[in-house]
Amino acid sequence: MKMIDVGAKRKTERVAVARGRVSMADATAGIVRRGESEKGDVIAAARLAGILAAKRTPDLVPLCHPIALTGVDVEARVEDGGVVIEATVRTRDRTGVEMEALAAVSAGCLTVYDMLKRYERGMRIESVELLEKRGGRSGHWRRARPARKR
Amino acid sequence: MKMIDVGAKRKTERVAVARGRVSMADATAGIVRRGESEKGDVIAAARLAGILAAKRTPDLVPLCHPIALTGVDVEARVEDGGVVIEATVRTRDRTGVEMEALAAVSAGCLTVYDMLKRYERGMRIESVELLEKRGGRSGHWRRARPARKR
Amino acid sequence: MKMIDVGAKRKTERVAVARGRVSMADATAGIVRRGESEKGDVIAAARLAGILAAKRTPDLVPLCHPIALTGVDVEARVEDGGVVIEATVRTRDRTGVEMEALAAVSAGCLTVYDMLKRYERGMRIESVELLEKRGGRSGHWRRARPARKR
Amino acid sequence: MKMIDVGAKRKTERVAVARGRVSMADATAGIVRRGESEKGDVIAAARLAGILAAKRTPDLVPLCHPIALTGVDVEARVEDGGVVIEATVRTRDRTGVEMEALAAVSAGCLTVYDMLKRYERGMRIESVELLEKRGGRSGHWRRARPARKR
Amino acid sequence: MKMIDVGAKRKTERVAVARGRVSMADATAGIVRRGESEKGDVIAAARLAGILAAKRTPDLVPLCHPIALTGVDVEARVEDGGVVIEATVRTRDRTGVEMEALAAVSAGCLTVYDMLKRYERGMRIESVELLEKRGGRSGHWRRARPARKR
Amino acid sequence: MKMIDVGAKRKTERVAVARGRVSMADATAGIVRRGESEKGDVIAAARLAGILAAKRTPDLVPLCHPIALTGVDVEARVEDGGVVIEATVRTRDRTGVEMEALAAVSAGCLTVYDMLKRYERGMRIESVELLEKRGGRSGHWRRARPARKR
Repeated sequence: MKMIDVGAKRKTERVAVARGRVSMADATAGIVRRGESEKGDVIAAARLAGILAAKRTPDLVPLCHPIALTGVDVEARVEDGGVVIEATVRTRDRTGVEMEALAAVSAGCLTVYDMLKRYERGMRIESVELLEKRGGRSGHWRRARPARKR
Repeated sequence: MKMIDVGAKRKTERVAVARGRVSMADATAGIVRRGESEKGDVIAAARLAGILAAKRTPDLVPLCHPIALTGVDVEARVEDGGVVIEATVRTRDRTGVEMEALAAVSAGCLTVYDMLKRYERGMRIESVELLEKRGGRSGHWRRARPARKR
Repeated sequence: MKMIDVGAKRKTERVAVARGRVSMADATAGIVRRGESEKGDVIAAARLAGILAAKRTPDLVPLCHPIALTGVDVEARVEDGGVVIEATVRTRDRTGVEMEALAAVSAGCLTVYDMLKRYERGMRIESVELLEKRGGRSGHWRRARPARKR
Repeated sequence: MKMIDVGAKRKTERVAVARGRVSMADATAGIVRRGESEKGDVIAAARLAGILAAKRTPDLVPLCHPIALTGVDVEARVEDGGVVIEATVRTRDRTGVEMEALAAVSAGCLTVYDMLKRYERGMRIESVELLEKRGGRSGHWRRARPARKR
Repeated sequence: MKMIDVGAKRKTERVAVARGRVSMADATAGIVRRGESEKGDVIAAARLAGILAAKRTPDLVPLCHPIALTGVDVEARVEDGGVVIEATVRTRDRTGVEMEALAAVSAGCLTVYDMLKRYERGMRIESVELLEKRGGRSGHWRRARPARKR
Repeated sequence: MKMIDVGAKRKTERVAVARGRVSMADATAGIVRRGESEKGDVIAAARLAGILAAKRTPDLVPLCHPIALTGVDVEARVEDGGVVIEATVRTRDRTGVEMEALAAVSAGCLTVYDMLKRYERGMRIESVELLEKRGGRSGHWRRARPARKR
């Protein structure tokens, strides 16, 4: 088990974008849309939970490097039958921020589930995936067929 | 925004079981199976990350209650085209442990992704869902059609 | 230095209410009111930060006991020349939740400051105080002259 | 909600100084002065709690950037009717350390309250404010009229 | 890997006492005794670090249960050639607090090392061990031959 | 109490190696060797706990600087009468990583104890010490007589 040494890599600008979705009944999505969840504003809570989780990624993912994030943006939107979370994370460091973006999306999805579970226990977190990655040795990568179009 | 008061609920034995999967190419699953990941033992790391995340759920999910967990078991297994994570969480407290089980699965899946991302960036976390829940006012709930059979 | 032993105290219902205020220019308060802060929704962020801080109090305040909180409610409202944060915390445990309520208010105030500091650096956090405490050996306590009426 | 991207800002030396005060009865201040608090050394605990909180600021304040602090100094002193906490935080990074200094002061004040609350529940945290800020695009800023002279 | 289920165990009063020692040159111990460490009061810092670590044990030790501690007392004393840390932890819960006591001692010893390392890099943490354990199914246990007498 | 300012120090490559040992009966060491601990894989858990603790050192050791670690490797091996933990930590920062290496070893040892305590309560954590340190103003340091040869 080891956290690979990245000391020899260069500090460059790096960006990662990830996305995921909590699928739910239309009726449950309607509760989000009308702001009627008993626990409060689902969209705002999911966004903040995502930003906080991005910063705490090295605590959650054991072999992940601690990185100085320069920016985190988490969007959440309700659509028919679901809430979509998308996170964009930036750094100028020696290693990429895919894990931070995926952790932000995961925490956002968990928060959506938590705030709506009393209405529908069977919701499902789906398609948590990297959409894009820029910077670093591997250059620009973009997912060929995302689970859904942006 | 509020963490609902559960002070009037009774302390009872409660169990939640959740599951999720990281889908990947067969070649990547083979790396796990043969124990060849550069970062070390994927299965052991995913299980430990899941257990730690279960304990840290109230930190990750803003409106989630802090709960005294009595037991956490996280299993991980490689299969064709993926790694499946399943978490069982137990408590004797005033509120259920669905979020803890789902957080354990999410952290386990993120850890799998982290340890294999250098081999395949396009992996996807899929079908993070509650399978079963026992105890508390709502009694026994079981998912009708899980994403895959156990 | 010690965390006093409370093992002999009875588990009873306990509530604490605390309040504080970030004083600022009317123009800055207007930014909150109109939802124009560059970093996003000040009120939602302050409420969530408060709830999270309540749960993390034993980490922040070295000699504070870890307590199983049953409920946390954090309100934030903008008024002329300031934003007021009020937190209500509940438990059924062996010791009171004053520190959790005060920590929630402090974190809420810090979050307000953070989201508005680019508009006014001279804001001030004022009158973070306990308003009320119920339960436990000392019974019901209510502040005689709060810094401002509720 | 977003953690603004600061990737384009330059890394420069930055310093922030903040201060706050816990106001209390003279009798309570006397307990601190004579080192008679049941929980132990109030001044030492407040200073350490402040330093630890400075390092944990991005966890407490959701939209605050994680920053590599190079130095943190927290002073605490008892005076008539109160304990004053003053924190100086330094970094060589892309964004300022006001939030770290204010978080250190807040945690120091909460710790003072916690260690003395059994003697006086009505203490109040007052005038948590930035005194000075150096470095970064905005240059040197100094509070015109601090709540109290240094 | 699993956190064993303790749900069937009874909540009883449990106490654990642990001890450890940082061995150092007499000259270094003298720095502690005279309060001359550049970083500040070694004894106070070690005690507080120990108490905080006791509360954070389930985060540090992956398969350790989260427990509601009722009391933590950490003593530190300088003697010829070393600083001794002793921690007493109490709970009324379903499982023992040995790990909390040992974690407190370890964190206390690390803190002593940190504050003195500029004077002597070769210090050594020695004999971190459980001295006594009371409560729970296994009853009263006392170490037959502690590394040093109390 | 203060976290000394290191802003004027240069960022250089720095490495620290530390080691410690949990001494136990041969029978207990045999349980590790045969993989029979009820809680699971002792070696894997100790290694992961060590890596996570290295990243969390500034939280555990109050006056320790937050540092961007570039690599962490924790080895654990069973031998007659004990388990040895060795940690190597790397950074390119302004201050050394001795504390991170020692914290990794301590957390690894605590984890070994936790997973084996039901078999032998009298185990002892011994000789947690720095073996080597490279980089920074003080250059290369190597322990003259380690507690055991490597």
